[in-house]
Amino acid sequence: MKTKKLFTELCLIALITGFMATTAFSQFQQDRLTSPVIEDDGSVTFRLMAPNADSVSITGTWMESLRYTEEMTKKNDGIWEITLRDLKPDYIWYSYWVNGVRTMDPHNPWVIRDVVNTFSTFILPGEESRNLMLSDGNQGSLHEIWYPSPTLEMDQRRMKVYLPPGYFETDESYPVLYLLHGGGGDEEAWTELGLANRIMDNLINSGKAEPMIVVMANGNPNQTSTWHVNPGHEPARETDAANPMSNIEFEHSLAQDVIPFIESRYRVKTGKANRAVTGLSMGGWQTQNMALLYPEMFDYFGVMSMGMFEDGPFGIDPEEYFANAEESLRNLEEIGYQLYWIACGTEDFLFESVEFMTEYLDGLGFDYKYLETGGGHTWDLWRLYLSEFAQKIFK
Amino acid sequence: MKTKKLFTELCLIALITGFMATTAFSQFQQDRLTSPVIEDDGSVTFRLMAPNADSVSITGTWMESLRYTEEMTKKNDGIWEITLRDLKPDYIWYSYWVNGVRTMDPHNPWVIRDVVNTFSTFILPGEESRNLMLSDGNQGSLHEIWYPSPTLEMDQRRMKVYLPPGYFETDESYPVLYLLHGGGGDEEAWTELGLANRIMDNLINSGKAEPMIVVMANGNPNQTSTWHVNPGHEPARETDAANPMSNIEFEHSLAQDVIPFIESRYRVKTGKANRAVTGLSMGGWQTQNMALLYPEMFDYFGVMSMGMFEDGPFGIDPEEYFANAEESLRNLEEIGYQLYWIACGTEDFLFESVEFMTEYLDGLGFDYKYLETGGGHTWDLWRLYLSEFAQKIFK
Repeated sequence: MKTKKLFTELCLIALITGFMATTAFSQFQQDRLTSPVIEDDGSVTFRLMAPNADSVSITGTWMESLRYTEEMTKKNDGIWEITLRDLKPDYIWYSYWVNGVRTMDPHNPWVIRDVVNTFSTFILPGEESRNLMLSDGNQGSLHEIWYPSPTLEMDQRRMKVYLPPGYFETDESYPVLYLLHGGGGDEEAWTELGLANRIMDNLINSGKAEPMIVVMANGNPNQTSTWHVNPGHEPARETDAANPMSNIEFEHSLAQDVIPFIESRYRVKTGKANRAVTGLSMGGWQTQNMALLYPEMFDYFGVMSMGMFEDGPFGIDPEEYFANAEESLRNLEEIGYQLYWIACGTEDFLFESVEFMTEYLDGLGFDYKYLETGGGHTWDLWRLYLSEFAQKIFK
Repeated sequence: MKTKKLFTELCLIALITGFMATTAFSQFQQDRLTSPVIEDDGSVTFRLMAPNADSVSITGTWMESLRYTEEMTKKNDGIWEITLRDLKPDYIWYSYWVNGVRTMDPHNPWVIRDVVNTFSTFILPGEESRNLMLSDGNQGSLHEIWYPSPTLEMDQRRMKVYLPPGYFETDESYPVLYLLHGGGGDEEAWTELGLANRIMDNLINSGKAEPMIVVMANGNPNQTSTWHVNPGHEPARETDAANPMSNIEFEHSLAQDVIPFIESRYRVKTGKANRAVTGLSMGGWQTQNMALLYPEMFDYFGVMSMGMFEDGPFGIDPEEYFANAEESLRNLEEIGYQLYWIACGTEDFLFESVEFMTEYLDGLGFDYKYLETGGGHTWDLWRLYLSEFAQKIFK
């Protein structure tokens, strides 16, 4: 009886400790190892308790490629450690390799998923990451909802909708940004990996962007939602999945299902002056397609990390593509648009396709704006590009 | 140039593979190792590619305690493996131990967080887990919103709100279930760990529960939101955090901030007949407190995995507590209520406190219903208890 009582007391203490442990990032491992430890000078120490490991290394988004690793050092107490300085303040992802196995940091409970890989993560505070932190002022809302998609022959598809601060305190209507993810991504990518709602709150509350609704649908025409919502199920619908980019079914569904649904569910300003579309990688291709297929619907286009192809990956027939592309772009010019914006990093594996695209558009005399940055095909750039694009639209 | 083109092509293939890889759970590692593998007979094989590991074991929610592990076997190709049969169909969590380090399954991208620990997870399909799968029929919505909390002196606190299927297709008003998490949890616990929205969709669509709104606020009076939304910040407010359960600040805030906000923001049926409150562990204590402090507000109370204490953990003074408790329960009887429901597992470390509670209530002749199950202080039971309680209210 005494023993049982002692056990209960210990469990209660554990319960309370668990409670206290989540009150702040720096406190979430009270009596356990803390990792990462962020010092005031911005240095970050990563640690792992692994007395029986033979080798421990780390990989993270500060490296040029996630295929690289850096060795950690074993201390006397069985704790492996590495201190990194001069990391850029950002939403940083990392993982450990323990005896050749990729693992999360068991001391850090904040884990995210990028396509099929998971990472431990934290935000390194600083001027460059200020837009990723909880905004001063009111926060917007994030709605996870389902909508019918007759175009894709699905009763319901899942999407995320960001509503700006003030939406529920006024009767105003808002313009809408349709924000598209990349290949392998889904309707959760832009909030989980892109922190899009956090970025929008900061831009809107600081007056840098107009208050707007942001719609994040699932751009894969064979899915009703991200796979883990519907585990064990086959794809909801057969599509030409080997060529996801030449399959323009999602584009039609965006115009014919998503936009009408959003404009009936929310207080939305309609007409092309109040619609923008942008996306990364596959979503950048879909954005280009929206300009070609539905030029009357949008005034603003943002193409991130995606160009055009003179040869035919993704099942695209270049000859046919470019025959139609020119006519469609002339049509877009005639209808009129406010901004056709392209952004890419010079280390992106698709950079060559973007160079080819800008040359092609120059050849047509087509009006566009172009932002070239350093960096590759990575989320730090897409967060930056969203921030840049959002400040240029609906003004 | 040729090499660069080849590299680009390879990256494109990777991009397409990534795309295809997420179309279904069983396909998310096309050319990589698949784990877990679920066979038609319900057996589950867990695997890990770890040629350089000396020992690999597994721990999971099917075990009596997560402190136990089971050895995995190394095959010739460096893959460690274990096949488990007769697992109960459920939302199963597990992790590996590689040379003594706890890791996620790198082959399974579905990761969840319970307080400060992360787990790989999957749903084992079967009759017992049917309510956890995507429901037939329409899905409800999940809103992530912020509300003002003058009682806690916070401009904004984060909460999740579930709206039932049909909410946006009708003009109806709905009753509201206030669903409270446990110590260490936050406003994300009931959806991430409890799959509450999935359970409610299934119960409502099958006619087993009335359509209702479910509100999941953050029950920690020193937090504005789960810590990772506001990383690096100190607790938003000083409270008596060493005694989270004797601190009744959240209870007052639920009555004075949360309920009025919900009833102004959504189409809600008001009055006690249309309000229920339930919670697990710390949330079960808070539920008891709502009955004592705000008996005029609710007709339905559900106390999960939490009893009363004859000695004084959590800073509770038993003498003072029981003096007030009796008077308050008599007051509740006078005002009237529909259901006071208690549920606990016989292996729960708090089971003794629940036995004490039912004896105490019996002594008063206080009317309650009691569900005793097997099992401990774990989420499989709380998902079951939610399902049971939700079917008993608003009828």
